[in-house]
Amino acid sequence: MLSKNQIKYIQSLHQKKYRQQHGAFLVEGAKSVQEVLQSTFRVSLLVATEAFYKENAHLTDRQRIPVEIASPAELERIGTLESNNAALAVVSTMENQPLLAEPGEMALVLDDIRDPGNLGTILRIADWYGVRKILCSETTADVYNPKVISASKGSFTRVNWWYGDVARFLAETSGRSKRLIYGAFLDGENVHQLSFVEDQPLPGYLIMGNESNGISAAVGQYVTHKLTIPRFGGAESLNVGIATAVILDNWRRRVSVSPTP
Amino acid sequence: MLSKNQIKYIQSLHQKKYRQQHGAFLVEGAKSVQEVLQSTFRVSLLVATEAFYKENAHLTDRQRIPVEIASPAELERIGTLESNNAALAVVSTMENQPLLAEPGEMALVLDDIRDPGNLGTILRIADWYGVRKILCSETTADVYNPKVISASKGSFTRVNWWYGDVARFLAETSGRSKRLIYGAFLDGENVHQLSFVEDQPLPGYLIMGNESNGISAAVGQYVTHKLTIPRFGGAESLNVGIATAVILDNWRRRVSVSPTP
Repeated sequence: MLSKNQIKYIQSLHQKKYRQQHGAFLVEGAKSVQEVLQSTFRVSLLVATEAFYKENAHLTDRQRIPVEIASPAELERIGTLESNNAALAVVSTMENQPLLAEPGEMALVLDDIRDPGNLGTILRIADWYGVRKILCSETTADVYNPKVISASKGSFTRVNWWYGDVARFLAETSGRSKRLIYGAFLDGENVHQLSFVEDQPLPGYLIMGNESNGISAAVGQYVTHKLTIPRFGGAESLNVGIATAVILDNWRRRVSVSPTP
Repeated sequence: MLSKNQIKYIQSLHQKKYRQQHGAFLVEGAKSVQEVLQSTFRVSLLVATEAFYKENAHLTDRQRIPVEIASPAELERIGTLESNNAALAVVSTMENQPLLAEPGEMALVLDDIRDPGNLGTILRIADWYGVRKILCSETTADVYNPKVISASKGSFTRVNWWYGDVARFLAETSGRSKRLIYGAFLDGENVHQLSFVEDQPLPGYLIMGNESNGISAAVGQYVTHKLTIPRFGGAESLNVGIATAVILDNWRRRVSVSPTP
C-alpha cells in the first residue's frame, strides 16, 4: 500500500517546480508505462493494478523496480489521467545535454511551443519520421509535463531533447561549420519543390515557431532556407504539429533513406 | 438582457439531441463568430460584449441579426468555452444534402472518426488543401459539437458535409461511374510514389478511418488505391488529422492546381 508520503511525492510531480526539484516525472497508462519499462529511462517506482503487474512482471523484476499494487481509483487519484486501469511509473529525468545534428541528420528546433498537446504530438511525429534530436527554447512547454508524455504515445522514449537558449546555440554552431537551417515562413520556397539535398550532406535543423507568433526574430535570423507549405483553400494557418509533419514528410521524400519495414 | 428562456435554449444546444431538435448550434469566440457572420450560415441570435458588438456592427446590422449584450462571465456561463470575452452566436444548421465529388476533385470520407478535436482539425486541414466536401459515417462525431466548431478555427464555414451510410454511398457511386477511392492501410503503396493522376480526371474520395481501428471492412471494400505513409522511426502510428494532412499534401503536390496566393 502506498504511504501518505509516497502519495504526496507522486502528486507533487504534477507540477514542473517539483519535477525539477526531484529530477523525476510521471508516466501513466498501460502503453506508455510498458514503453518506459523497456527504455533506457530509470523507473524508481511502479504503481500498478494486480493485473498489469502480473502481465508485466518480466519487465519490472529483472530491473528490481519497487512495485506497489493499487486500484484504478487510486491510480486516478494520485495521477493526472481521468481513467487509468493499468499503471503509473515514477521515472528519473534525463540530464540536459546539448544535441548537435550530424551530417545528413535533421534535428528539430522548437521556438516557444507553448501547448503541451502540441509538444507531445511533435515528439510522436519526430519519432515517426526518424528525427531523434529536439532542441527546445526555455519557453517551450516542459517535456516532462504529464500531458506531453501522454500525447507522445510512448515516443518520448525514442527521442532526445535539450532545453536552452536556442538562438545562442544556432549562433555558436554557425561559427563552427556549415549547416542548413530551415524555418517555415509565409514567403518561403514551396516545400513541394525544395530539394533538401545538397552536394554533400550537412547537418540540418528545422525550426518550428510559436503557435500564434511563429518563429521569433532572434531565432529566425539564423534561417538559411525559408520554406512554405502551399495552401489551396481558405484556412489561415495549419496547427504547428500538422506543419511539422508535412515538412518532415517532404524532407523524407527527398532524402534517400529506406522506411522502417 | 438575456431571458431565462433564452439562456435555457442556448445551454440546451451544448447537447446533440437538442441541436438536432432545434436545428441550431453554437459558434463561440471572436474569430469564429466573425467568420460565421461573413458566411452563408444564418445567425438567429448574437450574444456579444459591448466592445465586440461595436466593432462588428457592420456585420450584424446589415443582416438584421438580433443582438443581446452580455459580459464575458455571462458568455462563459451560457457557452462552452472556458474563456470568452467576445461573442456567441446561435446559428441554423445546414440541410443534410448528399455530396458527390466532381471529376478531378477529392472529397473526404470519414469512417467513424470519434474525437471532436480530430474532426475539427480535419475540417481545418481540408480547408487548407481546398477540399470542400466531407462525407461522414453516422458514427463520426457531430460536426455541430462546439468542440469541433472551435477546433476548426472558422474552417466550418468553408467546407460542406453530409452524414449518412458511407458504405452504401460508395456502393451506389461505384455502379454509376468510374472513380478513385483512396484509403490509408499498412500495406498500401508509398504515398510519396503514388501519382494520384490518371489519364482523364476522375472523381476522387479519400477515406480516413477510426482512431483505433482504421477503416472498417464494410467501407474498405470499395477502396481502389491502398496507400501508406512511409515510416522512418519507432512510432506505431500517426494521429488521423496528421495522416489526413500528409496524404492531402502529397495529392496536391501531384495534381496541377495553383496554390492560394
